Amino acid sequence: MELTSLTFGEFSLVYNMFSFTIAAMLASGLFFILAQHRVSPKYRISLVISTLVVGIAAYHYFRITGSWAAAYEITSAGNYMASGKPFNDAYRYVDWLLTVPLLLVELVLVLNLSRQKSGPLLTKLVIAAVFMIGLGYPGELLSADSMFSERGFWGLLSTIPFVYILYVLFGELGTAMEGQPERVRVLFRNIRYLLIFTWGFYPIVYMAPFAGLTGSTSLVTIQVGYTIADVLAKAGYGVMIYAIAREKSLAEGYSVEEAVTA
Amino acid sequence: MELTSLTFGEFSLVYNMFSFTIAAMLASGLFFILAQHRVSPKYRISLVISTLVVGIAAYHYFRITGSWAAAYEITSAGNYMASGKPFNDAYRYVDWLLTVPLLLVELVLVLNLSRQKSGPLLTKLVIAAVFMIGLGYPGELLSADSMFSERGFWGLLSTIPFVYILYVLFGELGTAMEGQPERVRVLFRNIRYLLIFTWGFYPIVYMAPFAGLTGSTSLVTIQVGYTIADVLAKAGYGVMIYAIAREKSLAEGYSVEEAVTA
Repeated sequence: MELTSLTFGEFSLVYNMFSFTIAAMLASGLFFILAQHRVSPKYRISLVISTLVVGIAAYHYFRITGSWAAAYEITSAGNYMASGKPFNDAYRYVDWLLTVPLLLVELVLVLNLSRQKSGPLLTKLVIAAVFMIGLGYPGELLSADSMFSERGFWGLLSTIPFVYILYVLFGELGTAMEGQPERVRVLFRNIRYLLIFTWGFYPIVYMAPFAGLTGSTSLVTIQVGYTIADVLAKAGYGVMIYAIAREKSLAEGYSVEEAVTA
Repeated sequence: MELTSLTFGEFSLVYNMFSFTIAAMLASGLFFILAQHRVSPKYRISLVISTLVVGIAAYHYFRITGSWAAAYEITSAGNYMASGKPFNDAYRYVDWLLTVPLLLVELVLVLNLSRQKSGPLLTKLVIAAVFMIGLGYPGELLSADSMFSERGFWGLLSTIPFVYILYVLFGELGTAMEGQPERVRVLFRNIRYLLIFTWGFYPIVYMAPFAGLTGSTSLVTIQVGYTIADVLAKAGYGVMIYAIAREKSLAEGYSVEEAVTA
């Protein structure tokens, strides 16, 4: 994607969003490690996976921030112009290639299915996720101002596995809610909304250029949009999973006092 | 090896594969640390060694990525040409010199042999590994388009200890499978395949220039090939070893709940 000149505010908004995200990912990772003993042992694997997800994201946001800073130079007028070094958008897709399968593992774990069921389900979802990400990337490299463009074509292909994943997960989450205590049901309902809301954010951002946004507005919208979606889908999501694990632990009679002092 | 000009796609593919590998190594290392309590204490040393392997690899991939970025400069046309700084391929061989003996220790640990047997076995395997890596390196520095070249000669010498190591390990893994529970047997069978598949990848990559690949295609194939092999042989391998340790722990009546609260 061609890098156009940015105002001081545009460059700084993106840069500071990236930096915010590094802090949010690292802090939530630290929380997932330090709060392990607050959930019963069988739910701790979910916190471990949340830690990996936000850790991987923190690494990539460090890289993205560095690439963003290197891709621009401040002018004497206080604007930013392209430095000639490319802004490497691939970090996002590499990140998703690692973190989306982990998020799927985490979701399937929380469903508490039998091994016979969770294995094949996860295999299907992970394969769909790889297609979703792999098909989206070629379009991301292209500018476009219409849905009926090459970017739109790749986005459409990528949407097929995306819809499949959401459809399967939404159904499974609904089934998992049955027979749970009231508080856990509410959390499951919320995680269902969060899933639709955060995951649904990505295709909207992808389509931003089709809404008539051009040049720097399109670039800034895409970067800020993906960043907000990542914070919600990774750190926010991990906190929700923690809340579910905590409620379930308490409902099952787990007491942190006994566990720590025994 | 002479550095030829690369297209934007070629340079980026290698760069992004390196970055992907750093993230994968760091995340799997974090997992091996955080998931320790999920296997019974006697198997935890395997996770410790896996952590060292991926930690060493993460360090070297940071270095390799930096060396790769410094060895090229982007042109105004968007291609990459050699900057004059060398790309340091020795990082790989230094990495292998440290990680291959550790991987061998890990494998021998999982075989659960008596001390009288495991000590001498490991000594033989580690000596063979040092010869394998030491003999391969001189050839790696040379371009070649034929098996009957100096690169081919060093590769051939390196293959002798390589075949010896695989032959010994394959046999020992077969012996170790006997008398194990069904699920553990399946995992042992898979680890045997993974061993052949991932280790077998390295000589194929080494021979890539003999297949008529030249210039940038040869360079990119070698870098991407070794990188995939490293991810599988280190992070993938560690996850397999974890899975074996976990199954064996459960089969032996280990329970994470009891271990934590006792």
